[in-house]
Amino acid sequence: MKVSKLLGERFKEAPKDCSIESHALMMRGGYMKYLSNGSYSLFMPAKRITRKIENIIREEMDRIDGQEVLMPVVMPATIWEESGRYTSIGSEMARLKDRSGNNMVLGMTHEEAAVHLARDTAKSYADFPFMIYQIQTKFRDEPRCRGGLIRVREFTMKDAYSFHTSQEDLEQYYDLCYTAYERIFARAGAKNVIGVKSDSGMMGGKVSHEFMLLTEIGEDTLAICPECGYKANMEAAECVVENETAVELAPLTKVHTPDAKTIEEVAKYLSVNDKNLCKAVVYQQNKDDKYVVVFVRGDLEVNETKLRNYLKEEIHPAFITEESGIVEGFIGPMNLPKHAKVIFDASTKGLTNAVCGANEVDYHYAGFNIERDYGKVDYVDVAKIYEGAICPVCGKPVISISRGIEVGNIFQLGTKYTESMDMTYLDADGVAKHPIMGCYGIGVGRLAASICQESHDKYGPIWPMSIAPWQVEVCNLRRDNDKVNETADMLYAELTKAGVEVLYDDRDIRPGAMFADADLLGVPVRVVVSPKTCDRDVVEVSFRDKSFKADIAIGSAVEEIAKLVKAELAKYDI
Amino acid sequence: MKVSKLLGERFKEAPKDCSIESHALMMRGGYMKYLSNGSYSLFMPAKRITRKIENIIREEMDRIDGQEVLMPVVMPATIWEESGRYTSIGSEMARLKDRSGNNMVLGMTHEEAAVHLARDTAKSYADFPFMIYQIQTKFRDEPRCRGGLIRVREFTMKDAYSFHTSQEDLEQYYDLCYTAYERIFARAGAKNVIGVKSDSGMMGGKVSHEFMLLTEIGEDTLAICPECGYKANMEAAECVVENETAVELAPLTKVHTPDAKTIEEVAKYLSVNDKNLCKAVVYQQNKDDKYVVVFVRGDLEVNETKLRNYLKEEIHPAFITEESGIVEGFIGPMNLPKHAKVIFDASTKGLTNAVCGANEVDYHYAGFNIERDYGKVDYVDVAKIYEGAICPVCGKPVISISRGIEVGNIFQLGTKYTESMDMTYLDADGVAKHPIMGCYGIGVGRLAASICQESHDKYGPIWPMSIAPWQVEVCNLRRDNDKVNETADMLYAELTKAGVEVLYDDRDIRPGAMFADADLLGVPVRVVVSPKTCDRDVVEVSFRDKSFKADIAIGSAVEEIAKLVKAELAKYDI
Repeated sequence: MKVSKLLGERFKEAPKDCSIESHALMMRGGYMKYLSNGSYSLFMPAKRITRKIENIIREEMDRIDGQEVLMPVVMPATIWEESGRYTSIGSEMARLKDRSGNNMVLGMTHEEAAVHLARDTAKSYADFPFMIYQIQTKFRDEPRCRGGLIRVREFTMKDAYSFHTSQEDLEQYYDLCYTAYERIFARAGAKNVIGVKSDSGMMGGKVSHEFMLLTEIGEDTLAICPECGYKANMEAAECVVENETAVELAPLTKVHTPDAKTIEEVAKYLSVNDKNLCKAVVYQQNKDDKYVVVFVRGDLEVNETKLRNYLKEEIHPAFITEESGIVEGFIGPMNLPKHAKVIFDASTKGLTNAVCGANEVDYHYAGFNIERDYGKVDYVDVAKIYEGAICPVCGKPVISISRGIEVGNIFQLGTKYTESMDMTYLDADGVAKHPIMGCYGIGVGRLAASICQESHDKYGPIWPMSIAPWQVEVCNLRRDNDKVNETADMLYAELTKAGVEVLYDDRDIRPGAMFADADLLGVPVRVVVSPKTCDRDVVEVSFRDKSFKADIAIGSAVEEIAKLVKAELAKYDI
Repeated sequence: MKVSKLLGERFKEAPKDCSIESHALMMRGGYMKYLSNGSYSLFMPAKRITRKIENIIREEMDRIDGQEVLMPVVMPATIWEESGRYTSIGSEMARLKDRSGNNMVLGMTHEEAAVHLARDTAKSYADFPFMIYQIQTKFRDEPRCRGGLIRVREFTMKDAYSFHTSQEDLEQYYDLCYTAYERIFARAGAKNVIGVKSDSGMMGGKVSHEFMLLTEIGEDTLAICPECGYKANMEAAECVVENETAVELAPLTKVHTPDAKTIEEVAKYLSVNDKNLCKAVVYQQNKDDKYVVVFVRGDLEVNETKLRNYLKEEIHPAFITEESGIVEGFIGPMNLPKHAKVIFDASTKGLTNAVCGANEVDYHYAGFNIERDYGKVDYVDVAKIYEGAICPVCGKPVISISRGIEVGNIFQLGTKYTESMDMTYLDADGVAKHPIMGCYGIGVGRLAASICQESHDKYGPIWPMSIAPWQVEVCNLRRDNDKVNETADMLYAELTKAGVEVLYDDRDIRPGAMFADADLLGVPVRVVVSPKTCDRDVVEVSFRDKSFKADIAIGSAVEEIAKLVKAELAKYDI
């Protein structure tokens, strides 16, 4: 490909709306163009990168016996009604009517379509297990698009669905898929991707993992134990605390706490540690505005996703009215209006002689002991884990908090979809059963952008050889010099003939501008041909990541450069 | 791949809604599953076929310097408003609102998105010409889906858009693309594809060609001249006639023609040839119900598409009311109500002493001579060409009518989109100009189905080696025989290792059922391993198209079969 004809502009200034470097670099490098909110057209370099990623994914899915299929983007609402998700999913699912007035949806995921495809065709236990996958366009009407290709509304996704006759078989396959994902990210050149336990969200099912590319600009927060290797999304990480138990229980005493509404104010006013406070956090359920009062240890926060999952309800922070009878700033377990749902976080278990609100303006209780004063409660884990928290696996107080971008996820779905959509098979005894499913996703564009985020300098992306848009860029520094022209033309032709993917900058522009563009295109191997190098019968070969630089004789350049490319590629050929 | 795990059912009875053989065979062979009107999920065999077709297309597009890009499926209505097509395209374009209430459309074609992508990035004449293409999902809300993948609502399409600074440059590139298309169809194994002149329809522009796979089940009708090679879609074929001119003009005479309303009745009643009748065909414009009366020679029909293109209006056959003043069965040019639009087809030019309606119940005129009795008229070509018609190029009366499926099309678009969407570049003199566009489409699934239609027997598809889902199928006829098992397993493993794509039927079923399934899967080379062949230390190798059958020694089978595959593949490697 010649740069002179390559569509897409490269420029110096980052667009104003780019808060993330990879976004800015991919805009500045002519990788993509904004079309509408969360929707981009990809120019050739980005398309080449994503296609290479797709090919890596395809090879790894085929390696674990995946069958590539293709399901429609536009689906009839009927199959989503079967699973119940037509109503349970909100406005992130785009809906339309076809010319006959039928309700249709745009696929944001394809569990329903996968079950539709597989049911009636896999009827006997002998047909199992199998996995189908596709690499296809999805539309998810995200309320908050960000970071260029990191969070968009339309994206290319690999989604896979496996079907099994036993939980053990699913778990075995799940592990295979886990390993396939590790291979995919490694082959694509993503260096810092880890699998973490995750929350299954709207997918249903119990066990699930996310693959997180670690970066400080990640939207997700992860809890990692450096001692035992425990890794979980904060939303799935159990918050374990130890409470000091007092030897003697103090009596419950109402105390006057004028104007002490916040934890800090109460702790200061009563001179107690915030770890001895029983803090109230109030939400309302979206469906009926019912109040949900969560009691959590004073030094901790509530993780709303954990709470949402426990309640199986959408919630929002409460708007506390006068009529509610809830006394903001002084909320406690006792005398709370009966209409409110009360939840005790596990961190309040074992609290002794605690301080809590008295449900009366300017009053708190001291000497509060939950079981003695309030009664038996079921403790629930809804608190947010924190830096230095106790690892729920090894018990050491060494949890470290990181940030990451979710580049893939795998779920053990169970029978949620096969039951609701009535997919059955006959087992060896002739009994009809519902197969057990797993599902496995990777966002292709997001992975490309994440790799850019992890692998760039201030001048542009540094693409790994395995997914680079081209392998070698030849820079012709002097179009008006015969020997330079001949040499550069020859390298373009001969390297291409040798099977190397070459980008050829054949433009008549200043070296500085040419190198700036080359940096933005991030091609791993750069070959500079100039009058100076030609005088010495060499070309100057360097790596974009600065790990290699050498003059190579023109006579052996094709062979040597092809060798360098091959050696670089081999690093990703695991 | 092992058939025992291949998802998709193969069965004997064609589904009731399959009127076309390829549709029936692709349903029976487990290639696809109906999801909703005009929408199918593809199983692995179909996905493999379409992916191979896509790869062929990609290689040929790259060969003519195409840049692969990716544009969104879901587009903002705004860019379609710029071009004017948001209102001019009817209900075949699916529309929806996003969560913010913005109007969005599903892409049925991408001229607007292509101009959006290219404008502001190609600013100088030196950036031209260039071509961008994508292989991507389209949704077109077809009123009449048919033939399985032949006419669907959701489909995968390769669409390409080229941009030029002169008409000559466009024409040169257009020819390159024409050749690339011929190569694509030949490489995919389509035997009877011809390029025909076509009507440009809603695309705009003047010159366009369709690539038609000739088959009697085709929806399109083509006019072909076996003498000079003229080929055109009927909608684009000029209908040329010769009228015998009378030596003496007869006087215009009103004649009583009781109950003679049809051409046949009038011709019979007045004992004249239908070629001497001036027939009226009446339509109404959709937008205002205005009547359009077309006069055409009595033996000919009106081609509605040609009429529509001339009028630049949507039309429908007229519902003639009493108030209209139009006298059904006796319509003629004279005394016709003034509100009707009158069109004379070119076939009426030179008619002498003709018969036409008198616009009065039970009366016609004889001796009608258009220019003498009615006045000067502009003749327009809106008649349907017919078998044996005069070739508009070489003038011989040998036009033959064929049917075909449109598997690709190419258009010279001109500046319709670059003008309406204001894409400009600076030419060498610094003057801003609109680039000239071409666009080029191929429907991937339709091509697959069309090849199946042209290449099948009653047992199943006969896939060309270049797009076959697998290259070789190994049939293990006796799972309980050690030598058969060993040999078949070995062939599966070793052929796969040798780079051959092998489907392995490892099921414990009757040979008849296994062969029936193999016929439906249409794999070009079949290798049968049975106790009989093993006793003779051979396997039985045959081609699905019956062109080859031989016993091959087990010891050399891998090598020999790989050679056969290579030789077959080479036939498509043009």
